[in-house]
Amino acid sequence: MTHKVLLLPGDGIGPEIAAQAARLLTACQEAGLDIEVEEGLVGGSAYDVHGEPLPTETLDKAKAASAILLGAVGGPKWDKLEDLSKRPEKGLLGLRKNLGLFGNLRPAMLYPQLASASSLKPELVAGLDIMIVRELTGGIYFGQPRGIEVRNGERVGFNTYIYSESEIERIGRVAFEMAQKRGKKLCSVDKANVLEVTILWREVMDRLAPEYPDVELSHMYVDNAAMQLVRAPKQFDVMVTGNMFGDILSDAAAMLTGSIGMLPSASLNESGQGMYEPCHGSAPDIAGQNIANPLAMMLSVAMMLRYSLNEAAMAERIEAAVGNVLDDGLRTADIASEGTRLVSTVEMGDAVLAAF
Amino acid sequence: MTHKVLLLPGDGIGPEIAAQAARLLTACQEAGLDIEVEEGLVGGSAYDVHGEPLPTETLDKAKAASAILLGAVGGPKWDKLEDLSKRPEKGLLGLRKNLGLFGNLRPAMLYPQLASASSLKPELVAGLDIMIVRELTGGIYFGQPRGIEVRNGERVGFNTYIYSESEIERIGRVAFEMAQKRGKKLCSVDKANVLEVTILWREVMDRLAPEYPDVELSHMYVDNAAMQLVRAPKQFDVMVTGNMFGDILSDAAAMLTGSIGMLPSASLNESGQGMYEPCHGSAPDIAGQNIANPLAMMLSVAMMLRYSLNEAAMAERIEAAVGNVLDDGLRTADIASEGTRLVSTVEMGDAVLAAF
Ligand SMILES: CC(C)[C@H](C(=O)O)[C@@H](O)C(=O)O
Ligand SMILES: CC(C)[C@H](C(=O)O)[C@@H](O)C(=O)O
Repeated sequence: MTHKVLLLPGDGIGPEIAAQAARLLTACQEAGLDIEVEEGLVGGSAYDVHGEPLPTETLDKAKAASAILLGAVGGPKWDKLEDLSKRPEKGLLGLRKNLGLFGNLRPAMLYPQLASASSLKPELVAGLDIMIVRELTGGIYFGQPRGIEVRNGERVGFNTYIYSESEIERIGRVAFEMAQKRGKKLCSVDKANVLEVTILWREVMDRLAPEYPDVELSHMYVDNAAMQLVRAPKQFDVMVTGNMFGDILSDAAAMLTGSIGMLPSASLNESGQGMYEPCHGSAPDIAGQNIANPLAMMLSVAMMLRYSLNEAAMAERIEAAVGNVLDDGLRTADIASEGTRLVSTVEMGDAVLAAF
Repeated sequence: MTHKVLLLPGDGIGPEIAAQAARLLTACQEAGLDIEVEEGLVGGSAYDVHGEPLPTETLDKAKAASAILLGAVGGPKWDKLEDLSKRPEKGLLGLRKNLGLFGNLRPAMLYPQLASASSLKPELVAGLDIMIVRELTGGIYFGQPRGIEVRNGERVGFNTYIYSESEIERIGRVAFEMAQKRGKKLCSVDKANVLEVTILWREVMDRLAPEYPDVELSHMYVDNAAMQLVRAPKQFDVMVTGNMFGDILSDAAAMLTGSIGMLPSASLNESGQGMYEPCHGSAPDIAGQNIANPLAMMLSVAMMLRYSLNEAAMAERIEAAVGNVLDDGLRTADIASEGTRLVSTVEMGDAVLAAF
């Protein structure tokens, strides 16, 4: 069966890094991978053409695809849009929600070749390998009621942080299973000393724990988790948390490596369909200059092969190619350091393809 | 007029560090400060005696005081209390809410003597001096509706993240004024690309800005703020944000210094009444061992003198005394390093008093 892969370049540096992913997909096809690649518009670039950040056409293509590769969305050009529902981010959120991509996997791992890029002392991050499992289709991102309205003579803004037991259980199982495949330690992050919704969260995690006796479950308050990530990040193996805390902690964790331009992510639904994208954003300040790091995007292809297309061997070939290129000392500007060779987006793409 | 100061030792290491603050208060009285010091129970220790984490007696004393010094609350002993309203944390939240202590000032500054304690590379944190202004009596901590209930045949947990314009304006003004007294840069942190409540937040900050033309206002999404704190914390001067984001970011920022045992905080209401407490928690694991660092608590006394009692000169005397003690190489276990002298809680108190 031919898998359909949908490539959504998006905004900012999205198109440049997506172009390198497209070349890599072609190389995979030449190496025998049976896929069909389509492209589509999402985010600000979709708004500019269709007046919508998630056109029906794109959503239909996404639904029909086995996997989606997304560059990045957003930029100052669209930040002033009064109507929040037209903002580029809503294209991304719409894809997540409509496809039910509730399970967001955000690895934060340090490439040994890039150890010096971290702002932390080397001994604190050497060998760092954390997997953050973030719930992605619920919580305060999607909770109702929400809005801005007049109450008692003045405007109030409000959002609702809400989770049902089944939503918590579903993401909990993803996290426990992930821990089973890794270091067998799971830290669930909440604010159960203040928020009722996270009291339920903690309770459900505790209820699931006996079904995964090989996994050691712990709980941590979100403020402490933010602190511990800075203090001693290697204490963590898998972390699981809700949409908002996951947004914050996964970015902090990614930045610990100092090379967020290297980190891919996956967002999966119940049938294994997935969307894959770099952890970094659309970086409008460097867009169009051929200097962005394409590696997170190319590693997103590897993650897609592993999680949605069941092609672990080819995923490993990509990861090994990236490792070789780093060993050879090639670096885009974001990860450059003394004694390495500065290359452009396209040159980095060339090098990975040559090593593939 | 004699100022009333209420000392609330609380739980865990609270009583040990509060004892050093009490000695310091006596020294201040001997140096001419006109205060009357009372003590009270709060948190788990209040629950153990009165069955309530915030007994009426304590709240009445707090209302009558010019300033409150709080050690810390909470511990595993009370974590299993089914009724959330009896938990130690509710004593703290009740004090904040009942006294209207909406303005939480959390400095994260690096003592040059302790530069090596940071987990970040020295050049990234040398001279670090951030002031986080956190809204403390609103947002998701206190929003209604909240709870756990059955809907569609399963339990859901929910909380409400809500701010009114006047609440945002009030904390905004504290932050702008703080920025005027410092480096004149204010960064407001929100998630305005997703949450309506923070769209209103951003709008109000923008509306206030022209009244403070000497302050440069910027906006940052919370995920990016968490990242930037790890990457390049010295870019920040004053940050302002809501209760929940402030909880997370202020702990991360404090930990950047590597010496959270050094950091005091203030929580102020509209009449300048304030509660002062260390940024660190009750550290139940080391309670009763005479090893906790009393400096954040003693520096909280200085912060109280400055912000609630208008005694800046005496505040400076305390801060200078702490500086001298650090210069002399005295360290409690949490900040000890090679070539320094390890001292106990009481010995550290002795040293500060001697230098005062
Ligand atoms: C762009 C934004 C809506 C998004 C989020 O908050 O989820 C991004 O920060 C992310 O983490 O993927
Ligand atoms: C103890 C807890 C309720 C409290 C909070 O979340 O505000 C603490 O973390 C703090 O930051 O003062």
